[in-house]
Amino acid sequence: MPRLTLNISMSLDGFIAGPNQTLEQPLGAGGEALHEWAFRLASWREPHGLSGGETDVADDEVVAETLQATGAVVMGRRMFSGGEGPWADDPNADAWWGDNPPFHVPVFVLTHHAREKEIKEGGTSFTFVTGGIEAALEQARAAAGDKDVSLAGGADVVQQYLKAGLLDELQVHLVPVFLGGGVRLFDRLEPIELEGTRVIESDAVTHLRFRVVR
Amino acid sequence: MPRLTLNISMSLDGFIAGPNQTLEQPLGAGGEALHEWAFRLASWREPHGLSGGETDVADDEVVAETLQATGAVVMGRRMFSGGEGPWADDPNADAWWGDNPPFHVPVFVLTHHAREKEIKEGGTSFTFVTGGIEAALEQARAAAGDKDVSLAGGADVVQQYLKAGLLDELQVHLVPVFLGGGVRLFDRLEPIELEGTRVIESDAVTHLRFRVVR
Repeated sequence: MPRLTLNISMSLDGFIAGPNQTLEQPLGAGGEALHEWAFRLASWREPHGLSGGETDVADDEVVAETLQATGAVVMGRRMFSGGEGPWADDPNADAWWGDNPPFHVPVFVLTHHAREKEIKEGGTSFTFVTGGIEAALEQARAAAGDKDVSLAGGADVVQQYLKAGLLDELQVHLVPVFLGGGVRLFDRLEPIELEGTRVIESDAVTHLRFRVVR
Repeated sequence: MPRLTLNISMSLDGFIAGPNQTLEQPLGAGGEALHEWAFRLASWREPHGLSGGETDVADDEVVAETLQATGAVVMGRRMFSGGEGPWADDPNADAWWGDNPPFHVPVFVLTHHAREKEIKEGGTSFTFVTGGIEAALEQARAAAGDKDVSLAGGADVVQQYLKAGLLDELQVHLVPVFLGGGVRLFDRLEPIELEGTRVIESDAVTHLRFRVVR
């Protein structure tokens, strides 16, 4: 059965976005600092339709490995339509990811609003699931074939899957910065045992992989 | 000038103690899990007056290195007298660390209550500083000689030193567990840039060292 995995950039003080997220500043104040290590990589640029980028760093292999392993994606509705804010309440918002989103696999969006599936360019589709996190995971698993289902976020969705015991593996790209505020990833959890399975470091970031122990 | 350093065990969700700290459960619920990696080491057991322990693991070298480098310690008053709770308000509480505390260097305790210096066995002394974090650091630096000043905690004291720009280096012993609640280390901070300077991994814990960039 396809595993459910999480790969996510986090500050040392635990934030995956800075404070004051807006449409113009979707990562929040200072949040860009969490992703600069990835923006410069060929493996990140290619699925985003950008040429060039670095290939001779360990970070590039980590990102390529994750993309290679991903057969389907699950995300929360606020991540689909652009984060917090009044515009997030528009159930038809879909300008966020463009005509050719960077996923290139089927994406399953958790929402309370039933909506027709959307087929985008480049292999990405958005299927809207109103039946809850288990239903979304079940549909994503069926679409993933022999690859993994990747949990894209946001933080509240990650917390729900963790507490339900449905996440199999997580890889934190730990960025050496304190943001001081924003969206905290590992919050309001319960005691959960992990096992460290791999550490890869580069000049910019440390990739820490864990298995969830059940 | 002696550097101010921090070496501390933290869960992946950012806690340095579990919820519901009491005198009987000073590390809070589940908090022991943060320190099990250290309890078994010869380098940890020796200053605590315990014989035996493992010596052939990377963790042991990390702990020995820190103790070797430490010439003085700064701690908050709640850490001196035992954590949160009504007993923490007794300015004369000192049973906590015993007759032969594990520090074996001069310790400077931040407090609002002036109090006579106490000389303990084994090289540990407790000096009570009412002049604030800069005064405590100044006194600790004078006592540290050519070694480092080690910041022992708690979390509020660490946050004060970080925000004042007085911490030079930090090493987080990242433990693969979610505690789900308790005392969060890196909270209520401001944006601060770090530089990762070393990663050492073992089966039980990952030691992540950072320099504070000014």
